[in-house]
Amino acid sequence: MPGTQKASYVRLDKEKAALALVDHQTGLFSLVQDYEPAEFRNSVLALSAIGKFFKLPVVLTTSLSMGPNGPLLPEILEIFPDAPLVHRPGQINAWDNAEFVDAVKKTGRPQLIISGIVTDVCVAHAALSAVEAGYDVFVVTDASGTFSPSVREASWIRMSNNGVQLLNWFSVACELMRDWRNDMAGLAALLAKYMPAYGNLITSREHTLAQGK
Amino acid sequence: MPGTQKASYVRLDKEKAALALVDHQTGLFSLVQDYEPAEFRNSVLALSAIGKFFKLPVVLTTSLSMGPNGPLLPEILEIFPDAPLVHRPGQINAWDNAEFVDAVKKTGRPQLIISGIVTDVCVAHAALSAVEAGYDVFVVTDASGTFSPSVREASWIRMSNNGVQLLNWFSVACELMRDWRNDMAGLAALLAKYMPAYGNLITSREHTLAQGK
Amino acid sequence: MPGTQKASYVRLDKEKAALALVDHQTGLFSLVQDYEPAEFRNSVLALSAIGKFFKLPVVLTTSLSMGPNGPLLPEILEIFPDAPLVHRPGQINAWDNAEFVDAVKKTGRPQLIISGIVTDVCVAHAALSAVEAGYDVFVVTDASGTFSPSVREASWIRMSNNGVQLLNWFSVACELMRDWRNDMAGLAALLAKYMPAYGNLITSREHTLAQGK
Amino acid sequence: MPGTQKASYVRLDKEKAALALVDHQTGLFSLVQDYEPAEFRNSVLALSAIGKFFKLPVVLTTSLSMGPNGPLLPEILEIFPDAPLVHRPGQINAWDNAEFVDAVKKTGRPQLIISGIVTDVCVAHAALSAVEAGYDVFVVTDASGTFSPSVREASWIRMSNNGVQLLNWFSVACELMRDWRNDMAGLAALLAKYMPAYGNLITSREHTLAQGK
Amino acid sequence: MPGTQKASYVRLDKEKAALALVDHQTGLFSLVQDYEPAEFRNSVLALSAIGKFFKLPVVLTTSLSMGPNGPLLPEILEIFPDAPLVHRPGQINAWDNAEFVDAVKKTGRPQLIISGIVTDVCVAHAALSAVEAGYDVFVVTDASGTFSPSVREASWIRMSNNGVQLLNWFSVACELMRDWRNDMAGLAALLAKYMPAYGNLITSREHTLAQGK
Amino acid sequence: MPGTQKASYVRLDKEKAALALVDHQTGLFSLVQDYEPAEFRNSVLALSAIGKFFKLPVVLTTSLSMGPNGPLLPEILEIFPDAPLVHRPGQINAWDNAEFVDAVKKTGRPQLIISGIVTDVCVAHAALSAVEAGYDVFVVTDASGTFSPSVREASWIRMSNNGVQLLNWFSVACELMRDWRNDMAGLAALLAKYMPAYGNLITSREHTLAQGK
Amino acid sequence: MPGTQKASYVRLDKEKAALALVDHQTGLFSLVQDYEPAEFRNSVLALSAIGKFFKLPVVLTTSLSMGPNGPLLPEILEIFPDAPLVHRPGQINAWDNAEFVDAVKKTGRPQLIISGIVTDVCVAHAALSAVEAGYDVFVVTDASGTFSPSVREASWIRMSNNGVQLLNWFSVACELMRDWRNDMAGLAALLAKYMPAYGNLITSREHTLAQGK
Amino acid sequence: MPGTQKASYVRLDKEKAALALVDHQTGLFSLVQDYEPAEFRNSVLALSAIGKFFKLPVVLTTSLSMGPNGPLLPEILEIFPDAPLVHRPGQINAWDNAEFVDAVKKTGRPQLIISGIVTDVCVAHAALSAVEAGYDVFVVTDASGTFSPSVREASWIRMSNNGVQLLNWFSVACELMRDWRNDMAGLAALLAKYMPAYGNLITSREHTLAQGK
Repeated sequence: MPGTQKASYVRLDKEKAALALVDHQTGLFSLVQDYEPAEFRNSVLALSAIGKFFKLPVVLTTSLSMGPNGPLLPEILEIFPDAPLVHRPGQINAWDNAEFVDAVKKTGRPQLIISGIVTDVCVAHAALSAVEAGYDVFVVTDASGTFSPSVREASWIRMSNNGVQLLNWFSVACELMRDWRNDMAGLAALLAKYMPAYGNLITSREHTLAQGK
Repeated sequence: MPGTQKASYVRLDKEKAALALVDHQTGLFSLVQDYEPAEFRNSVLALSAIGKFFKLPVVLTTSLSMGPNGPLLPEILEIFPDAPLVHRPGQINAWDNAEFVDAVKKTGRPQLIISGIVTDVCVAHAALSAVEAGYDVFVVTDASGTFSPSVREASWIRMSNNGVQLLNWFSVACELMRDWRNDMAGLAALLAKYMPAYGNLITSREHTLAQGK
Repeated sequence: MPGTQKASYVRLDKEKAALALVDHQTGLFSLVQDYEPAEFRNSVLALSAIGKFFKLPVVLTTSLSMGPNGPLLPEILEIFPDAPLVHRPGQINAWDNAEFVDAVKKTGRPQLIISGIVTDVCVAHAALSAVEAGYDVFVVTDASGTFSPSVREASWIRMSNNGVQLLNWFSVACELMRDWRNDMAGLAALLAKYMPAYGNLITSREHTLAQGK
Repeated sequence: MPGTQKASYVRLDKEKAALALVDHQTGLFSLVQDYEPAEFRNSVLALSAIGKFFKLPVVLTTSLSMGPNGPLLPEILEIFPDAPLVHRPGQINAWDNAEFVDAVKKTGRPQLIISGIVTDVCVAHAALSAVEAGYDVFVVTDASGTFSPSVREASWIRMSNNGVQLLNWFSVACELMRDWRNDMAGLAALLAKYMPAYGNLITSREHTLAQGK
Repeated sequence: MPGTQKASYVRLDKEKAALALVDHQTGLFSLVQDYEPAEFRNSVLALSAIGKFFKLPVVLTTSLSMGPNGPLLPEILEIFPDAPLVHRPGQINAWDNAEFVDAVKKTGRPQLIISGIVTDVCVAHAALSAVEAGYDVFVVTDASGTFSPSVREASWIRMSNNGVQLLNWFSVACELMRDWRNDMAGLAALLAKYMPAYGNLITSREHTLAQGK
Repeated sequence: MPGTQKASYVRLDKEKAALALVDHQTGLFSLVQDYEPAEFRNSVLALSAIGKFFKLPVVLTTSLSMGPNGPLLPEILEIFPDAPLVHRPGQINAWDNAEFVDAVKKTGRPQLIISGIVTDVCVAHAALSAVEAGYDVFVVTDASGTFSPSVREASWIRMSNNGVQLLNWFSVACELMRDWRNDMAGLAALLAKYMPAYGNLITSREHTLAQGK
Repeated sequence: MPGTQKASYVRLDKEKAALALVDHQTGLFSLVQDYEPAEFRNSVLALSAIGKFFKLPVVLTTSLSMGPNGPLLPEILEIFPDAPLVHRPGQINAWDNAEFVDAVKKTGRPQLIISGIVTDVCVAHAALSAVEAGYDVFVVTDASGTFSPSVREASWIRMSNNGVQLLNWFSVACELMRDWRNDMAGLAALLAKYMPAYGNLITSREHTLAQGK
Repeated sequence: MPGTQKASYVRLDKEKAALALVDHQTGLFSLVQDYEPAEFRNSVLALSAIGKFFKLPVVLTTSLSMGPNGPLLPEILEIFPDAPLVHRPGQINAWDNAEFVDAVKKTGRPQLIISGIVTDVCVAHAALSAVEAGYDVFVVTDASGTFSPSVREASWIRMSNNGVQLLNWFSVACELMRDWRNDMAGLAALLAKYMPAYGNLITSREHTLAQGK
C-alpha cells in the first residue's frame, strides 16, 4: 500500500463505548469561563442526549455534592434516571473511587467517553487514569468546561500527549452513528434540537419543499 | 439639587412597551456570525419569553419568507400563535411597510422594543425609522445578530447616536419587571430556563435548603 | 405622538447619493491589517458593484499613484472605466484637492458615500471635510481598511461624533434598494457574488425546488 | 482664549463624592464573565479601599440577599462595617427603593460613584435614575461586571450617552487624590496592594536604593 | 552528519498526490464559523484551482446532498466537471463508502490531500481512516471549516497526533510547485487571483516598471 | 448646499498646534498592557519625531520622576533636549500644575496634542482640563498606553464625549502635513523609519526602478 | 483488558514532589504580558500557598537580583522564610547553577514542580534540563508568565514535546490532595482565598444553611 | 535516579549553531498579518543582532528578489554585509538550492537556527528538509511571520511534530548566552535596544542608583 506513515484510527463504536459524566454539578458550573453558559449547557445536554440516543451505558458521578459543589445538573438526572450515580465522598479523581471504577468496568466496554467540570482536574485526572487502566479514552472538549481558554489548552496538551482522543460532541455523535441510514429521523431530530444552525437548514428545506408542491 | 448634568432616563414600562421581532427567519440565521448559534437562539427565545411573560403586544414580521430568507423560526410562532405576522413582499425596512406600521400603531404603545436579523439592516433601519416616527426605541443587542462583531459595533454607533437605546434581553426583563415581588416565581422560572448560571444558583440553594431541614 | 425623543433618520437615497472611492491603491492595501485580505478585497469590490448596480455617480481618486502608494486597484478601474479619476499630486485629504471637490459637486448629489484606505486618514479627513461642506456623509466601514482594529475604532469615534453615518456595504445596498421588488434578480445576483452565505441559501433553495418538481 | 470647542470637565472631588456599591453579592458574582474572577475581586476591593482611604460616605445595598443572589461579599462588609446596608426586598433598580435613595441623599454629596453586578442592570438602571435625579454619576467600569464584553459595551454606550461618566478604579483614585503630596505613603500603600505592577516598581526601587547605601 | 534528531520530511509531490474535496455543500457551509465566509470561500476555491493547476487526480464527494446538507458548491463543479463525484447515501466518514475509496485508489497516488466541511467530522474521520489505510494524508487547514476555533483546534490535535500533516492551501501550492521556474506565469496568476496581497505586489511592480521605461 | 447635517471639522494645523508628552516615564511604561512594548515604543517615538519634524512647540512633563515612576524615556529627551520639562512634585493632573499650564500657554497655540501614560489618568485628566480651558484637544491614541483594552475603551468614551478628538500618530502626521509636496522626502523618511510597511513599499519600488534602468 | 492504547499517568504525589520557584522577581514581572497582573500575582501566590499547605520541599532562586531583574517578590519570601534561596550570579538556566541543582537533589524528591518568569526561558530551560536529569517535571502554566500568548504557546509546545507535564495551579493542588477528606477545611480555605468563584460558592452555601436553621 | 520519563534536551550552543535568515524580503513582509509590523521588524532585527553578537555563521537567502518578492530588508544587509547571500532563482524550499545547502554545510555547525517569511512555507519547508538532513533545527517563532495566527499554529504543529524546536528570539539569546557573566554589558545593551520593557528596567535602576549617591 502507498504512503510512508501508518497509524491506527482509534474510533468510537456504539457497541464498545460507555459514557461517563463527571461532576457536572450546579456549583461547579460557576467556575466555567471558557464557554458562554447557554452554549455550554447546550453542549452538555447534547452529549447526554447522544448517550441516550445510542443507548450507551452511562456512569454518573459527583464530588461532594452536599457541599459547595452542588448537586448534579437536574436535566442530566432527568435524561438518565436509572444510570448509576456515584457520589464520591472525597476523591477528586473519580478513578480513585472504587465504586466508580466498578461501575465503569460493569459496562464491559473498552471505550470510555468522558466529559465534566473542570476539564483540567475532574476530566483530565480521570481520563489519564483510565488510559493507564487500558481504556481507549475520548474526552469531549465542548461538553467539558474550565477556568479559561489557556487552562483548557494546557490540559488538552497534557491529555492528548498521554493517549487521550479529543473530540467535540458532534464528532462523538457522527463517529457513533457511522451511517445516517441507521436512523435518519432520529439523528435529524437530535441535531435540530442541539445544533440550531442545522435545525434551520431542515426547516428552510421543508418550507421550500412545501412550496414546490 | 446636586450635580451639574441632567438627562432624562428613557426607561421601559410594561404598560407602554410593545415588542417587534423582525426577520428572525431560518435562512437569515445562517448569516449571523457575531454570536455562537446556541447562544443566539437562546437569547432570541429569552426575549420572546419575556414578551409573553409581560403580555406585551407583539408584532412579527418577515421579509420574503417564501425565498432564501426562509420562514420565521418555528419556536417563535409557537410562543406567539396569535400575534400579527406581517409578511413583507419586498420592503427591506419594515417601517416602509404600511401593514407593519399599522400593527405597531395599533398596539397604542409609545415604546418599541426591536430585535432581529441582521442588526445593521433589518434592525437598524426599522429602529431609525421608528425613532423618526416618534417612538422611544429599544434595540435588544443580544437577540439581534449580524455578520461580525465589527459590523455590529458600527451599527450600534449609528443607532445610539440617533436616539436608540441599546440593551440586552436581561436588561429588558429587569426594566419591565421593576420589582421581583410582582411575580417572584415567574421571573425565577424564566431566568432558570434562559440563564443557566442563574438556574444553577437556584438549584444549588434549594439543594442546600433541603439539607438544612 | 408617542415617545420622548426624536431624531431624523439620515437615510441613503439612490437618487441623492454619490460614491467616492478614495485611495484604494495597490501599495496602500499592504498597510491594512484590520481585515483579512481576501475578505477586504471582497468588501471593496462589493461596494463598487453596488455603485454600478444603482448607477450612482462615482468619483475615484488616488494619492501619489506614481510612488509607493501604487495604482488604483485594477478591478475598480474595470468596473468604472468612465468615472472621473482624480490623481492628487500631493494633497492627503482629497477635499483639499479642487478637482476632486469639483467632481463631487458635479454629481449634484447631497449624499456622499465614502470608503478608502486608510480609514483614519484618507477616509476620515475627507469625510470630516465633506460634512463641514454640508454633505450627508456615509462612511462604509468594511470597505475601508487601516492598521489595526484599535486605530479603526478611534477613527470611527472621531467621525461619528462629528456627524458621519457609519455603515457596512450590505447596509448601503439595502438602504439604496429599499424594496427587493425594484430588481429582485439583480440584487440576488449581487449578493450571491459578494456574500457567499447568501449565495449558498439561494443555491440550496433552487436545489430543493428542483427536487420538488 | 484659544480653541473652537468648550466643555466642562465633570471631575470627582473627595469632598463632594459618595460611593454606592450595588449588589456585589456572592451569588451574582457567578454571572460575571467579562473579567477573570481574581482580577475582578481585586478591582472591587480596590474601589472599596479607595472609598475608605478617602473617607467617602458609602452606601451598600443588596437585592434579595436571602435568595440565590446571596449575601454581600464578606470582604466588603469588613471594610465598611458601619455603612448603611440597604437590603432591597424586590426592587431591581436601587433607585426605586426609598431607603436607598434616602441613604444617598443623607450623604449630602452631589457626586455619586457607582459600581456593582451586573453592569447592564443593577449598575446601569441605578446610574440612569441617579442622573435623572440630578447627580453627577461616575460608574466604575472595572469594579462592575456582567455576562460578556459585548453586553458591557452596549451598557456603556447607553449610560455614557445619557450623561454617565465612565472610569476605572485607578482613575477614581487619582481624580480624588489630585496631588500625591496629600498622602504619599497612603496612596503608595494602596497601589502596592491592589496594583501589583506598581507594587513591583516600589519594591525594585527600594531594593536598588538599599544597594546604593 | 550533524545533529541529534532525525525525522523524514513527508512532502507533497505533484506526481504522487491526489485531492479529495469532502462535503463542500451549500447547506454545510452555514455551519462554518471559524472563518469569515468570503475568506473561506476564497480558500476553498484556491485549493480547487491548485488541484486543477497541477492536474491532480481529484475525487469529489457529498453527504446526503438531496437533504439539508445541500448540493456541492457550484463553483467547484465548474472547475472539475469531469471528476468522479461520489454521492454518499448515508456514510458520514467517506472512507466507509466503497465507491469513494475505490475512486481514491484508482488515482494510484500514495499522497492524499483532503479538505472539507466540517473539519472535525467529514475531514477528520476520513483523514484518520486514510492514514490507517496507509496513505500519507495532508489536511488543508484553511480550506476546511467548522463550528468554532476551539473545535478546530481539538480536531487538529487529534489528527496531527495520528500522523496527519496539517498545512494551508498556500503551503500545498508551494510544496507541489517546488520551483517557480516550472511555470512562473501560471503560479503568479493563481496567486494574484486568490491571494490579494500578492496580487497587489505584482500590480505595483508592473506599474513601477512601466514608469521606468 | 446639500445635506441635512452640519458640523465643523476640528482639524490640526501645524501653525496652531503644540505637543504635550505627559509622563512617558520608564517606570510607568511597565503598567502598559494594551499595546505590545516594541509597538508602543515605536508609536511614542513616531509622535515625538512628528513633533520635531513639524517644529511644533513641545512641553514635556513627568510625575514624581524621582520615585517609582522613573525618569522620562531617554529617547524622548534626546529628541527634545531644549523643550521645557516640568517635573511635577505631586499633581497627578498636569493641568493642576501652574508651571505646566504656563508652558502650554507660552506656546501661544490653540490646539493641544496630548499623549502619555496612562491613558485613563495622566492623559484623560489633562485632556479634559485642557478642553475646559478652551483648547482644541487631540489625544494620540496609539502613543498613549494603559492597563487593558477595556480601560482604554472607557477612557476614550469619556474623553470623546467631552470634546476631545481621538486620533493615531499617523493621522496627526497627515493632518499636519496636508500636502506631501511640502516635504516629500522628509515625510517619506519619517514613515520609512516608524512605519515598516510603508518603508518596505519604498524599498521595493526603488529596487524595481533600479531594475528598469 | 479493554482498549488499544496504553500510557502511564505521570501523576503528582505529595510525598514525591518538590517545588521550585524560579525568578519571580519584581523587575521581571514587568515583562509579563500574557496574564493580567492581579490575576498573575494571585496564581503565583496560590501555587506558593499550595507548596506550604502540602509541606513540599521548596527551592527558591533568582537571577542577578541586584540588577534590573529586582528582588524576589516579597510575598513569596514571607511564605517561605526558611527555604533555600539560590541567588544565581549569572547562569540563566537555573540547572547550570550547581547550588540550585544541589538544593533540588537534597529534597530527595523525583518529581519537580516548576514555575517562574519568563516561561520560555527561566522556566523552559530549567524544565528541559530537569527532564534530561531524570526528573518528572511539572510546569505550572498559570503561575509562569511571559511576553505574549504566542510566545507562551510555542514554549508549551517545546516543553511538552520533550516530556514536561503542563498543568495549572488548581490541577497541582488537586493532584497532590487526592482526597478532600485529607483536610477538607484546609483545602476549602486555600481555595476561598485564591479562587474567588469557589469562595463565593462557600459563602453562599453557609448563608443559605444559616437561613435553614 | 528519580523520575519515570527521560528525554534529551536539544539545546543551542554558540559554538555549534549557525543562523539562516530566509526570505525576509520587503515584498513578502506585506503578506505578514500575524504580528504588528513594528513588533515584527523589531523581532527580526533582534534575531539578526543576536547572530552578530554571538558571531554565529550566517547564511542569507532570497527568493526571486528581482520580482514582486522584493529585495532583502536593507537593515539585515547592513548587519551582515559579508554573509553569503544566496539569491534563489526559483526554488521555494531553500534546501532545494544546492548553493544554500553548501553555504549551510560550510558553516560546519550541526545546529541550524531558521527564521523567515512566510512561516508555513519558506520556514517550514526548509526546516523540515534540514531536520531530514540531520540538523538540529530551531525555528524562531517571533522572527517568522505569516498570513494569520491560525496558519502559524498549523505550521508550528507540523514542524514540532517532525522534530523542529520552536522558540522565540529571547530564548535563542538566552540559550546561546548561558551565563550573563560572559558579557553582561553586551547582553544588557542588546536587550535595551530590542526589548523596551527590559531597557526601562535598566534606565529606572540607573536613575535610582544616581539618586542614592
